[in-house]
Amino acid sequence: MTEHAALPVDEQTRIGRMPHYQKTDRADLYAVLDEALFATVSILRSGAPMALPVGCARDGDSLLIHGSTGSAFFREAAAGADLCVNVTLLEGIVYARSLFDSSMRYRAAVIFGQAAEVPLKEKESALLTLAGHLMPGRAEEIRPMTKKELAATLVLRIPLERASVKDNRTSSPDEPDGDPSVWAGVLPLATVAGVPETSPATAVGVPVPPSVEGMKRRFKGGDV
Amino acid sequence: MTEHAALPVDEQTRIGRMPHYQKTDRADLYAVLDEALFATVSILRSGAPMALPVGCARDGDSLLIHGSTGSAFFREAAAGADLCVNVTLLEGIVYARSLFDSSMRYRAAVIFGQAAEVPLKEKESALLTLAGHLMPGRAEEIRPMTKKELAATLVLRIPLERASVKDNRTSSPDEPDGDPSVWAGVLPLATVAGVPETSPATAVGVPVPPSVEGMKRRFKGGDV
Repeated sequence: MTEHAALPVDEQTRIGRMPHYQKTDRADLYAVLDEALFATVSILRSGAPMALPVGCARDGDSLLIHGSTGSAFFREAAAGADLCVNVTLLEGIVYARSLFDSSMRYRAAVIFGQAAEVPLKEKESALLTLAGHLMPGRAEEIRPMTKKELAATLVLRIPLERASVKDNRTSSPDEPDGDPSVWAGVLPLATVAGVPETSPATAVGVPVPPSVEGMKRRFKGGDV
Repeated sequence: MTEHAALPVDEQTRIGRMPHYQKTDRADLYAVLDEALFATVSILRSGAPMALPVGCARDGDSLLIHGSTGSAFFREAAAGADLCVNVTLLEGIVYARSLFDSSMRYRAAVIFGQAAEVPLKEKESALLTLAGHLMPGRAEEIRPMTKKELAATLVLRIPLERASVKDNRTSSPDEPDGDPSVWAGVLPLATVAGVPETSPATAVGVPVPPSVEGMKRRFKGGDV
């Protein structure tokens, strides 16, 4: 696989419903992942699926997730359990003129594969990549990681090889036989940041730092 | 199980990490589900987990999801595959004074079990329950469902028996040894609605209907 190879379409990754919304360009996959703050990761536990939300960040052609070494879920994922990662960005409610044709506007990425544990010598760098996505600029405002913290953290890397992307943003709420006197359309939705809440232990007068102001601007909802 | 029985805490449902954030009151589970427009549903396919986002609505002590009879995923779920439903509400980014103690503010529900297909005679009512949650008031503004549409839709009911809820909204970004001259706090996040987009085929002058205005008010982000 090269960085620019198209995503595979096969029995596992082919989108069965509304296949015209399937995207096979890696740029579409990366766009979904780069907008997400968490992914829902499913593994098998005792024969049944189990899914948890985890913070994530793309690192080139792989996805990084991290958790505690004390987490059975992460240890099993690190041991090579088959997993499925789902990232869904809900972008609106589509009001057609029938319930049947009504739907959601969304982009969703589904990634299949196994995770590999990031080795100790690459762990700090991988955690900084995660932090750079989840709270950009923050690492420079606070104390460095300790060896103890590094030892207590598992970082997993999931290759972005077997993935599918569905993007139905071009779908129309207008059915061919719809009654034009009935309103149809889309109510857009987006994730928006509010006013930062300063912790009780922060000294009086310490301003909201650039990292937080930056994320507030990123999630300002300007185009909703 | 009665409507008011506490949620079970056992090997499958016990929260391993930060167990003090586990909630066993059904009201906490219902609050998460009643705020969600979709759930991430995981099943086993060919031995590996596969997770997709699906619209959902709580109906008493069960969760309803719906999809096409043409969806292999829904047919397998209807056939009684073990499944895991995850609903995550991301409510903020927690900026501690170390990356290690930084995290997300969220509530997440995880439901284990099997789905049962809603029989034909209850299907229309179940679909109206789904519509009443996902687009309240809309069913009264548009034409009724047809028999053909009903026949093309699978509605599944998942019992809310084996579920766990994690709610870390009370977590503090203040570590005992944190430096108070470094800002710590939370950047709240919420889903917010934008300006309704009227479809091209809607006749000129048809106003945005009450159903859409109602959802716009619900997702107004007033408390973010």
